[in-house]
Amino acid sequence: MNYMDLDNLKFLLFDVVNLQDVLKFEKHKDFDLEGADIFLDGMKDLADQALYPSFKEMDEKPAMFREGRVVIHPQLGEIFRQVAESGLIGSHFDPKHGGMNMPHVLVAAAEHILHCANNNAGPYLALTTGAANLLTSFGSDELIETYVPKMLEGKWMGTMSLTEPEAGSSLGDLTTTAVPTDEGYFLIKGQKIFISGGDHQFGENFIHMVIARIQGAPEGAKGISLFVVPKHRITAHGFEPNDVITAGDYQKLGQRGYCTTHLMFGEHNDCRGWLVGEPNKGLKYMFQLMNQARLEVGNLAVSIATAAYHASLAYAKERSQGRRMTKEGMEAKEQTLIINHPDVRRMLLKQKSITEGAVALLLETYKYYDLVHCTEGEAQQKAQMMLDLMTPVAKTYPSDMGIESVSNGVQVLGGYGYTKDFLLEQYFRDIRITSIYEGTSGIQSLDLLSRKITANNGQAMMVLLEVLNETIAAAKGKETLQPYAQKLEEAIGEVQKVMEHLLPYAFQKQYERFLANASLFMEMTGHILISWQWLRIGLAATEKLESGEMRWPAAFYREKIHTMKYYFVYELPRIKGLAETIRTKEELTIKKEELSIFD
Amino acid sequence: MNYMDLDNLKFLLFDVVNLQDVLKFEKHKDFDLEGADIFLDGMKDLADQALYPSFKEMDEKPAMFREGRVVIHPQLGEIFRQVAESGLIGSHFDPKHGGMNMPHVLVAAAEHILHCANNNAGPYLALTTGAANLLTSFGSDELIETYVPKMLEGKWMGTMSLTEPEAGSSLGDLTTTAVPTDEGYFLIKGQKIFISGGDHQFGENFIHMVIARIQGAPEGAKGISLFVVPKHRITAHGFEPNDVITAGDYQKLGQRGYCTTHLMFGEHNDCRGWLVGEPNKGLKYMFQLMNQARLEVGNLAVSIATAAYHASLAYAKERSQGRRMTKEGMEAKEQTLIINHPDVRRMLLKQKSITEGAVALLLETYKYYDLVHCTEGEAQQKAQMMLDLMTPVAKTYPSDMGIESVSNGVQVLGGYGYTKDFLLEQYFRDIRITSIYEGTSGIQSLDLLSRKITANNGQAMMVLLEVLNETIAAAKGKETLQPYAQKLEEAIGEVQKVMEHLLPYAFQKQYERFLANASLFMEMTGHILISWQWLRIGLAATEKLESGEMRWPAAFYREKIHTMKYYFVYELPRIKGLAETIRTKEELTIKKEELSIFD
Repeated sequence: MNYMDLDNLKFLLFDVVNLQDVLKFEKHKDFDLEGADIFLDGMKDLADQALYPSFKEMDEKPAMFREGRVVIHPQLGEIFRQVAESGLIGSHFDPKHGGMNMPHVLVAAAEHILHCANNNAGPYLALTTGAANLLTSFGSDELIETYVPKMLEGKWMGTMSLTEPEAGSSLGDLTTTAVPTDEGYFLIKGQKIFISGGDHQFGENFIHMVIARIQGAPEGAKGISLFVVPKHRITAHGFEPNDVITAGDYQKLGQRGYCTTHLMFGEHNDCRGWLVGEPNKGLKYMFQLMNQARLEVGNLAVSIATAAYHASLAYAKERSQGRRMTKEGMEAKEQTLIINHPDVRRMLLKQKSITEGAVALLLETYKYYDLVHCTEGEAQQKAQMMLDLMTPVAKTYPSDMGIESVSNGVQVLGGYGYTKDFLLEQYFRDIRITSIYEGTSGIQSLDLLSRKITANNGQAMMVLLEVLNETIAAAKGKETLQPYAQKLEEAIGEVQKVMEHLLPYAFQKQYERFLANASLFMEMTGHILISWQWLRIGLAATEKLESGEMRWPAAFYREKIHTMKYYFVYELPRIKGLAETIRTKEELTIKKEELSIFD
Repeated sequence: MNYMDLDNLKFLLFDVVNLQDVLKFEKHKDFDLEGADIFLDGMKDLADQALYPSFKEMDEKPAMFREGRVVIHPQLGEIFRQVAESGLIGSHFDPKHGGMNMPHVLVAAAEHILHCANNNAGPYLALTTGAANLLTSFGSDELIETYVPKMLEGKWMGTMSLTEPEAGSSLGDLTTTAVPTDEGYFLIKGQKIFISGGDHQFGENFIHMVIARIQGAPEGAKGISLFVVPKHRITAHGFEPNDVITAGDYQKLGQRGYCTTHLMFGEHNDCRGWLVGEPNKGLKYMFQLMNQARLEVGNLAVSIATAAYHASLAYAKERSQGRRMTKEGMEAKEQTLIINHPDVRRMLLKQKSITEGAVALLLETYKYYDLVHCTEGEAQQKAQMMLDLMTPVAKTYPSDMGIESVSNGVQVLGGYGYTKDFLLEQYFRDIRITSIYEGTSGIQSLDLLSRKITANNGQAMMVLLEVLNETIAAAKGKETLQPYAQKLEEAIGEVQKVMEHLLPYAFQKQYERFLANASLFMEMTGHILISWQWLRIGLAATEKLESGEMRWPAAFYREKIHTMKYYFVYELPRIKGLAETIRTKEELTIKKEELSIFD
């Protein structure tokens, strides 16, 4: 089962991201490296046995709307049961809410394994965890007690019910209403579309986290409140229907085993919702969940790309085709495995460097999440700034570059990559959604440039530069790494020049000009953060080789250093063109009334 | 039906590529601009009425193998009939072979229209034309008379039967055998896979152009001969089965209406093939067909990307979401159409510039094909060099960048782009094969760098530079175009520096080093040739605006100039990073025995 390399994940988690940095805190005292190691082995076994075998079939027999409800693949029931039994759902929660204070970065590593094995299955549970987390963060004790335990058991499933037909990227335009009653609940009415995991035969109940506008609330984003709306109301005598109707299931390009529903709330004016937290703070609450969901999507994306990389690598090691050149410049007589052709090696190194670099970035981001929850004062502030700044990038890079990576995986297989006989075509379809889920790449880019980079008067940016410079300084101390440390330094210089061009627009409130090329700025930032990760990987590998304290053969570490070089030589230079484009003074993408293009 | 812009195609064909340049030759005396205009209108009507309406359904009800034969969508029979009636099949052939000496560039423009409307239908006929062309070029009069007329009627279908399970990109390794008999035919035995259009209910007969090795022939590419192998033998009493068995139909990611078959020749030792031309020259003959097939694939790719662009453009003009920024830096009150957001405009301009630029490049390449067949002496040599050099690029750029373009089309639609409710997801699947068909992008890149660029001691490259410099010189005469002409000049300088780095490897017969980054060289070349096309488009538009002799509103021409600027500012800079990477001295993708990566 060639869908991931557990050794690589452990190396990144233990030796690069340094899980130990969070384990040392009191909050995580029940965990140690040895335990984490065994835990990941167990997750891999679970993935091998319960998730991977049904992956292809979930695509072939997709989720379907039948007679008023969605029917998903039968193996999913078994997967939900086994994953819940493993304790993974909500494992990073506080014990008072049924969790075990597991570091989030370790949970993410476990989820990565599951997603690599079967990206159609894990998201159901990740969403349920996210919804439960929203309740434990902002809900009353009563709401928490009512819903959370069953969710962590994997018996009740959670959703994020945000999108409406006329409110996708701009949530402030939603029209779902909530009318207060004297009984403490609200009457909810409205339609929600693209609701992942919104209904199926394996959820005893569905706990929808719904955003809606309370009658009389302010217009736009400021008038949105968060409600918990169960499919079945819980009464003293058991379940009672709550007027939540499943209207359909979207048929999609990929992730066809993961249902995407259309839900109607309150068609018969009998849909009850309970306010979570205070009125009109719904979007703020929801952003907590969305921030985590963004990292989840990044994790999902890099997992699909990782599985595709390993599938194409396995093929390249088995398939003979063509000949190598001899030193004399002649074709060799014997056919060679395609993995020996430079162009195939390039496509494999591209995938390897994108996926391993992106896993490192995601784990590092999750580590900052943990640090925010373990530290105080200045340390916590810094961790929070890093987490906030890295989140949109850790969602977007794995998605956008993951799509490119998987496409290279298809290409390695040639004609076979296009057929249903291999998994590559499925990965190619599955991953395409990740640039759209939880805010498109365009939206993430606006967030990065307009909010994160400029946050606290640019302090976040300073903190990031400080952290990057630490890595650069350390790498400069190693002869092998020195040239690459310098490349990263130069790349940061390019970003600074770009900022010098952009920031004056922001100061002059010329926001349209400031943000017009936010997507290109995101692409630059992504490449720089991944280069940073590769320099850290190179450092860790070099230190292991120097000290001789190696868990894996020396070749394992040398391979990392080689892939680091590949990333700096083949991928990072892309920022050159991007920087030139962003610094243009020609405003070619801004609508001008005097120029009729697209009118 | 928003799948293409006929005005744009006519502008490119008449005003940029200058159809008149080939119409002036005696060979094409039956054609004039007015006739071409009416002909294209007729093709658009045919595409609207017969091809586009069934496009989605061909994907939903794909080609299927049932009881020993392939069943394709019923509308395809009607399409074959109507297209054959229009006279399009073989229309560029000599009248003595049933053609009408239509310029190939005009045929290509017509095929583009059909492919935009329905990329699952046209390829059946393009292949049949290609197979017939191979017969008229190299077959005996008897073979031509036997097969070609029925093929041009669309009743018998042609295929290219090249690929075998163990011989994909390296055709020299094929194992299909041909044993001579005393009766003038050969007994063919072997399996061919991935045979497009290899069998279905609408072909009365299938005329397979099969490459095989005659008993005792030399090993490798030098021992390959070309045969015509009909599914049914033609005898005095009618058809007789020819022991060609359809073993299956591949289920694919996309182009699901276009069947891809697995054929078995001579399982019962009774499959007869007739030699085309001389023995052991099969690959040389086949390359003629493959060169045309490469342009066909480029045309197919750009057509899919064009249709996707127009679908996403139409959506962006209808869908409201989010707000624009006011001049005061506030959000406007009213929602705006998404087409007014800079990031959406960027994604649309990206698609527009890639697709229109690639259509221009393809038509220009087809024009050189026509010039080869109308001119003599030095002019013909130059046209041949341009045709040869441009062919791999005109196949690869539309495919590789078309995939990126369509992905941007999906992104414009957000979540809806991922659903089966819109066509974008189908285009995204359909186009992915084009980087693989008729030689993967990697193979095309090797061809470009190892054969085309260096052909005739680099003469081809000199001819290309001469042609580019003519455009640059003309553009420098126009104030608006001057800065962009300079950008192209600089870009050519980058390529020259890259060549200075690469050529010494070739001279030293270090071919592996010379060719390791051929794919990146191809990407650079593609961007430069498209920039050249955009400069030509800019020139044509400027001249129309200056002279006032405008067929379309002035806004039409200004839009072209704007899109040209976009291409130079947003797309061309990509070559900066590529040039840096190619010039690396670190050989990171060449297998070194001392480094264990991928072992």
